[in-house]
Amino acid sequence: MTTKRLQSVLVANPKLDEDESMVDYFYDQPGSTPGTLSIEDGAPEPVIILIDYCEANALRVQLDDPEAAIPYLDSDSVSWVDVQGLGSEDVLQRMGQVFDLHPLVLEDVVNVPQRPKVEEFGHQLLIIARMVTPDDDGKGFIGEQVSFILGQHYLLTVQEEPAHDAFGPVRERIRTNKGLIRRQNADYLAYALLDAIIDGFFPVLEYYGERIEELEDEVVANPSRKTLEKIHELKRELLTLRRAIWPQRDAINMLIRDGSPLISDEVRIYLRDCYDHAVQVMDMVETYRELASSLMDVYLSSVSNKMNEVMKLLTIISTIFIPLTFIAGIYGMNFNTDKSPLNMPELNWFWGYPICILAMVLIAGGLVIFFWRRGWFENFSTLN
Amino acid sequence: MTTKRLQSVLVANPKLDEDESMVDYFYDQPGSTPGTLSIEDGAPEPVIILIDYCEANALRVQLDDPEAAIPYLDSDSVSWVDVQGLGSEDVLQRMGQVFDLHPLVLEDVVNVPQRPKVEEFGHQLLIIARMVTPDDDGKGFIGEQVSFILGQHYLLTVQEEPAHDAFGPVRERIRTNKGLIRRQNADYLAYALLDAIIDGFFPVLEYYGERIEELEDEVVANPSRKTLEKIHELKRELLTLRRAIWPQRDAINMLIRDGSPLISDEVRIYLRDCYDHAVQVMDMVETYRELASSLMDVYLSSVSNKMNEVMKLLTIISTIFIPLTFIAGIYGMNFNTDKSPLNMPELNWFWGYPICILAMVLIAGGLVIFFWRRGWFENFSTLN
Amino acid sequence: MTTKRLQSVLVANPKLDEDESMVDYFYDQPGSTPGTLSIEDGAPEPVIILIDYCEANALRVQLDDPEAAIPYLDSDSVSWVDVQGLGSEDVLQRMGQVFDLHPLVLEDVVNVPQRPKVEEFGHQLLIIARMVTPDDDGKGFIGEQVSFILGQHYLLTVQEEPAHDAFGPVRERIRTNKGLIRRQNADYLAYALLDAIIDGFFPVLEYYGERIEELEDEVVANPSRKTLEKIHELKRELLTLRRAIWPQRDAINMLIRDGSPLISDEVRIYLRDCYDHAVQVMDMVETYRELASSLMDVYLSSVSNKMNEVMKLLTIISTIFIPLTFIAGIYGMNFNTDKSPLNMPELNWFWGYPICILAMVLIAGGLVIFFWRRGWFENFSTLN
Amino acid sequence: MTTKRLQSVLVANPKLDEDESMVDYFYDQPGSTPGTLSIEDGAPEPVIILIDYCEANALRVQLDDPEAAIPYLDSDSVSWVDVQGLGSEDVLQRMGQVFDLHPLVLEDVVNVPQRPKVEEFGHQLLIIARMVTPDDDGKGFIGEQVSFILGQHYLLTVQEEPAHDAFGPVRERIRTNKGLIRRQNADYLAYALLDAIIDGFFPVLEYYGERIEELEDEVVANPSRKTLEKIHELKRELLTLRRAIWPQRDAINMLIRDGSPLISDEVRIYLRDCYDHAVQVMDMVETYRELASSLMDVYLSSVSNKMNEVMKLLTIISTIFIPLTFIAGIYGMNFNTDKSPLNMPELNWFWGYPICILAMVLIAGGLVIFFWRRGWFENFSTLN
Amino acid sequence: MTTKRLQSVLVANPKLDEDESMVDYFYDQPGSTPGTLSIEDGAPEPVIILIDYCEANALRVQLDDPEAAIPYLDSDSVSWVDVQGLGSEDVLQRMGQVFDLHPLVLEDVVNVPQRPKVEEFGHQLLIIARMVTPDDDGKGFIGEQVSFILGQHYLLTVQEEPAHDAFGPVRERIRTNKGLIRRQNADYLAYALLDAIIDGFFPVLEYYGERIEELEDEVVANPSRKTLEKIHELKRELLTLRRAIWPQRDAINMLIRDGSPLISDEVRIYLRDCYDHAVQVMDMVETYRELASSLMDVYLSSVSNKMNEVMKLLTIISTIFIPLTFIAGIYGMNFNTDKSPLNMPELNWFWGYPICILAMVLIAGGLVIFFWRRGWFENFSTLN
Repeated sequence: MTTKRLQSVLVANPKLDEDESMVDYFYDQPGSTPGTLSIEDGAPEPVIILIDYCEANALRVQLDDPEAAIPYLDSDSVSWVDVQGLGSEDVLQRMGQVFDLHPLVLEDVVNVPQRPKVEEFGHQLLIIARMVTPDDDGKGFIGEQVSFILGQHYLLTVQEEPAHDAFGPVRERIRTNKGLIRRQNADYLAYALLDAIIDGFFPVLEYYGERIEELEDEVVANPSRKTLEKIHELKRELLTLRRAIWPQRDAINMLIRDGSPLISDEVRIYLRDCYDHAVQVMDMVETYRELASSLMDVYLSSVSNKMNEVMKLLTIISTIFIPLTFIAGIYGMNFNTDKSPLNMPELNWFWGYPICILAMVLIAGGLVIFFWRRGWFENFSTLN
Repeated sequence: MTTKRLQSVLVANPKLDEDESMVDYFYDQPGSTPGTLSIEDGAPEPVIILIDYCEANALRVQLDDPEAAIPYLDSDSVSWVDVQGLGSEDVLQRMGQVFDLHPLVLEDVVNVPQRPKVEEFGHQLLIIARMVTPDDDGKGFIGEQVSFILGQHYLLTVQEEPAHDAFGPVRERIRTNKGLIRRQNADYLAYALLDAIIDGFFPVLEYYGERIEELEDEVVANPSRKTLEKIHELKRELLTLRRAIWPQRDAINMLIRDGSPLISDEVRIYLRDCYDHAVQVMDMVETYRELASSLMDVYLSSVSNKMNEVMKLLTIISTIFIPLTFIAGIYGMNFNTDKSPLNMPELNWFWGYPICILAMVLIAGGLVIFFWRRGWFENFSTLN
Repeated sequence: MTTKRLQSVLVANPKLDEDESMVDYFYDQPGSTPGTLSIEDGAPEPVIILIDYCEANALRVQLDDPEAAIPYLDSDSVSWVDVQGLGSEDVLQRMGQVFDLHPLVLEDVVNVPQRPKVEEFGHQLLIIARMVTPDDDGKGFIGEQVSFILGQHYLLTVQEEPAHDAFGPVRERIRTNKGLIRRQNADYLAYALLDAIIDGFFPVLEYYGERIEELEDEVVANPSRKTLEKIHELKRELLTLRRAIWPQRDAINMLIRDGSPLISDEVRIYLRDCYDHAVQVMDMVETYRELASSLMDVYLSSVSNKMNEVMKLLTIISTIFIPLTFIAGIYGMNFNTDKSPLNMPELNWFWGYPICILAMVLIAGGLVIFFWRRGWFENFSTLN
Repeated sequence: MTTKRLQSVLVANPKLDEDESMVDYFYDQPGSTPGTLSIEDGAPEPVIILIDYCEANALRVQLDDPEAAIPYLDSDSVSWVDVQGLGSEDVLQRMGQVFDLHPLVLEDVVNVPQRPKVEEFGHQLLIIARMVTPDDDGKGFIGEQVSFILGQHYLLTVQEEPAHDAFGPVRERIRTNKGLIRRQNADYLAYALLDAIIDGFFPVLEYYGERIEELEDEVVANPSRKTLEKIHELKRELLTLRRAIWPQRDAINMLIRDGSPLISDEVRIYLRDCYDHAVQVMDMVETYRELASSLMDVYLSSVSNKMNEVMKLLTIISTIFIPLTFIAGIYGMNFNTDKSPLNMPELNWFWGYPICILAMVLIAGGLVIFFWRRGWFENFSTLN
Repeated sequence: MTTKRLQSVLVANPKLDEDESMVDYFYDQPGSTPGTLSIEDGAPEPVIILIDYCEANALRVQLDDPEAAIPYLDSDSVSWVDVQGLGSEDVLQRMGQVFDLHPLVLEDVVNVPQRPKVEEFGHQLLIIARMVTPDDDGKGFIGEQVSFILGQHYLLTVQEEPAHDAFGPVRERIRTNKGLIRRQNADYLAYALLDAIIDGFFPVLEYYGERIEELEDEVVANPSRKTLEKIHELKRELLTLRRAIWPQRDAINMLIRDGSPLISDEVRIYLRDCYDHAVQVMDMVETYRELASSLMDVYLSSVSNKMNEVMKLLTIISTIFIPLTFIAGIYGMNFNTDKSPLNMPELNWFWGYPICILAMVLIAGGLVIFFWRRGWFENFSTLN
């Protein structure tokens, strides 16, 4: 039936004589048919990996065609089809037919980014999750949507790209038959992958924890324009992380509470653990966000502090030299000492100049002591 | 009955001898009869477009009179009457009679703006939505109320004006029989239009995302009075967007949860998708609002930074030249060198002037090095 | 029974030999007997207006005594007794006896201000609402408590004062038999008055919208001490508005949800509309509050901007003239040119003075160009 | 049984050979036996007042021993035992035995401060409330815990100290048989006292309202270091008030909702009124807190404003005199007018000096007009 | 069964030929098998203390092997096994086998920090709590996870390290048979320990209360760079405390509400008390956080205040001396008095110099009085 529906999209039946040009939107085009797939330019070609396992055996095959998965889906073993890359509408449509996906499911899987969520579509469970992996240069993270379609004995996962993926250890556990995974059904596999996604947030968070500590030092010791940019960027990235983890937590909670028959009670116990980790991630993100906000306040205060010190330097220099310059100005006046004994007699004194210099030294010294006592000189070592 | 009620408004029965003048309010006049329509000056004349379709056929007619829609309403085909423009009380009242609208429904439809909501009135469902379309010059958006009255086989939509409308692609899908739309009932049409409205938020949000990025550069590199105005304006517009999308989300949720018989279960599945998009819009609006708030903090810090640099320039100039000027002042004093060998003997030295100039150069050079080491000259390239 | 209770207040039965003086509190005296009425000094004398109507007839009488209302209350027609003014304890107590009010009801009605709320007392419904009317000089609003006591066929409303009242149009509708009001019962009258109260918030909000726009211009263009006071005052008044509308919304919601038999289902539909308007008012108040908060940030940034410009002016003047003054100081020194050819030979050059002046002009010109390029002169047109 | 439990605390049965010293904590010692009473040093000795009344009679006795209350508790009359002061563990323990209190109840009553709450313990209701009374010098308030233990025919109240108490008028109402109090049971007494406590917040709030108004004037007109301290102190005290009233509201709500048989339906109606007052208090506290936060912003802006004016004064003085001093410096140069006719010929002009002075006056005048036009002189009247 | 599961982790069954290297994560490795224990380097070796008691006897033994606890677990007496230190995977795994723990329970116990929570695992209740104890130098606190596994007659607690522990008094109560503890079951013991943990927050909070008071003085009197760092650090530590107490409160609430058969009704009453204390702790943390935020605002204002005073000093000095220096400059000009009687005749006056000096004194005095009147000298005593 799904196939029928998709075909119907291609059959046009023009009866109305209206002419309306379509604007070229980046997002889901407003008013576009539900189920329309919008393939982004530059999206990598899909790579399809099938891992099929039961307790006794495990098999890993790279498939060339979506239809090649069909024989595996019928067997009792757990089949994990992992599609990496969203670059071919044709392949994705055919994959939708192989798994008999509702057009809305296929739309959610392909038209990234979607909000993390859990939805039941008849005999299948759609789980949209957001995976973060540390950046290649370790200065941030890459966010990627991973969609799960969970059936009775199969799990279809769709990732945005083949690189970066937190699932390596899970594959290893299947390969080496470590832990319970080979003895459990597809729901346990979905849990294991979700858990890997949630645990993947911790290294990223740790990176941000370190960055906040670095910024805390920088912001007090040497706040610059760059620091400001870094704090703002930090807040922006934490906002993104937050948008990724909040709905994820709700989605996992829904998996636990809603009694879908596709999730066994034993797996639900494991999902509770996964939920706890999601809450922990959320707590940390919120804490970091508060710290980042506080950092901005510290920055502003710190810049004010610095300006205060610049002002103090200017004030010290001005306050010391302006009176001295005034005295020098006095004795630079040209009052005629010949006309009157009252006209600047100091100029003709024997000790006139030394006394004048002495007075200047005393005034300057007094002011230096004044500022010294108030501790104005203390901060200049850190002035920059 | 509706007609009766409306006529009764016109029949006055003056028995009380009171005299109270009415103030000229813009909004719904306090104490005005429920169901009173207030037509704004300058509202465009209504244009009525009827689109009637079933799976086999589709028809598009522009109606001159509201009553011309009556024959279409009786048939089994889906009739979509789209009223564009609120400029004529007469036409709207007659439209109300054609569709047998409750006076409160007509009031909500005409007296814009109302808060987005869903309400059931007997055999009809009233949906008030807020549509945003990008501005003509691409620098903002136009908000417009769209009211839906959904019946068994018909949908009446009322827009504020004929221009700007996100429904073009839906009309195209009806015309070309693309997707499911021609095979479904009026509730699917209502969903398709609601979905087009929600998807219409994305291009607008994208525009704001870009504007925030521009402002982020501007605010750190060159914060000016204009930047401040832009940030405040941005916050104001995001507040408006937020007020538009919040209640819309609640309204769609209500459509899904409340078991109105006018919405089929299949359409409810599509509405869940629409709801997810509304939540995504909300998330983005909230994120942008947080970024805009952070921008204001960055602006303030950035202005402080700039002031700091201006202060540094002043301090450098003052600190270098004030001591030099003082020295020049010293040797400008007129102490009489003839009266005493202690009176400024330097003036008569052979090397007096060169030594004096050298001392000045050394002092200036020392201070320049002092400031250089502290990095005070670094920021002046960006000083503006 | 109510009468009995009130009499019992007056009968003292002193058996304890304790002596405790009472402090003179403004508010409800701590520990005062429930039902004690505290009449504020200067409260206007009550004016009692009775409007009695059925579909056929309508009558308006000003009553001299509360007891004069009794004959009207028995009839089947709707009796609206409107008490305007809280200045006489005697009249209010007697009114309480006429309508058989619970002492707590009478206390809530008289001891203003109370929080808006809805409470059922046996056969009566008490509605406390807060009415705002624009100030006489149009620069703010007057808040006033209106209490409704709704019975089967009567409505008692108590206002704080005779002036300012949003009920004029409702009276007019009764007088002229416009709309449904004359054909409906007392619950519809209560709705109509509540609706008039809620609609009365809009003109007040519109005034604040305009004031915010004015302040937005003022705060960027010419921020002064007055602006600061205005913003703070604005925030204070919006807080008051918010305190008035929040509980009012809850009260209306309670009227809709709680199944009091005094409210008919038809009136409930109208109250839903009234509730929507209350939510809309709340939305606007919250939006304005956010804008006012943002204005305070803009103000601070704007003052910093201005200081920046003042600093720039000072820096320009100082940076240009301090080096020039230093040069002048140099050639004002008195080194003896006769003692050594190295002592300021420039003074005796033929071109000495012109070269010196030229150097000064070049330095000044260079600095002006330096500042010009950085755009420092641009903002002085707006400097104030 | 309660007595038994308390005795068991005293019987030690040392069998473990562990040695761990106890740290001297102020608060409830971590790990201390539940029911341990910690008597603060300097707590006043308890004074026990018993008021026993029925409709016909009322009696007031000061008791020397807790056990003296026993005979009164058996009678049908209402017995109000009011313990004022927590200074004696012995008296409090015996009081616990007289009223058969659960050890946790006694702990909550004695180990102040506890959070306001309502708890049922078998046949008794424990109500913890927080009473505020204005300070003796009227500059703040005193907070005190009042615990109610409500039984069928008795009410035990425990206050922290004998002075300051909002219950005077209630005692007076009992003494003079005013209002309903003598005809009602112990639950009504508890209501009357709770109501007195809530109403006691109003004079305190009024004081803070006045203080905020004073600060609003001070902060704009003359912001000083003292103002800053006052605003911070205000925020701190409002936080304390908030912590007192929030849980109190919840406690009263619980009294109304939870169907304890100790509270009659009639008293519940009165408690609703009390609840409304508590909500009103909370509203006011929140409003004041918002105003105090806004005050801090106003303060910061106001200080910036002042600095702006100081800067303007400096800029005016510098801008006017620096160019003039430069001109004076020019003509103080010693270029030899004999060597060249180009060397400062102005010095030998007949009008040289007057022209120079005139030029200075013109420059100064021009600058004064420049600043005048920009309104820089306007604010100096308020400069401080 | 648990043992079986854990062994299966060790059996590898490599069938897939994939090669993926594992990154070295600090946290729970993404994708690691649920139940994997990650022992931190430097974690102290576990010390196992068993306290076994009934009403008559109490016994305290330090166990060398986890298995040594098995005989005690079978008896009817309450067995409290307290593991202090997480440094040995072997010991912890064996402890898990002794108590038959679910692998997820063991993971939560060992892989610290986990979020405080309560979970039921079949016949056991897992309680994760966070204990804070004051730092050794009294300048902060040490946070530590304490896990409780509550069974019918036993309680297993696991602490992160042997030092610092709030349980001393509880051990003492068991040893000395003080209070109810020896007559109650293991659930009461769990309560007693939880209560000790919650009460342990109070001394820490008291420390922060004092620190806030110190900072309040410092921030107004002498705000420095250090103060800023201290405030930020304070906010950070309060955030940590908040993250510790929030989920703890929820966990205790869950213990009370969820009807686990392992908690008796009597203990639930005690837990209510414990819950109240947790809420009190939360209230205080939130209050302190608000005060710390307010402190940051005060700091910024205070720095602005200080800058204002520095500016005033500079302005006073400049405003007084710049005009005087200008006058001195005037009479330093070299206009030729011989060429014209208009050229600076003052220089040749008999009183010229004294009049000039007098004029300077008058100007300086006038300005000093000007500044004095405006109170500019008042703050310099506090200038630093």
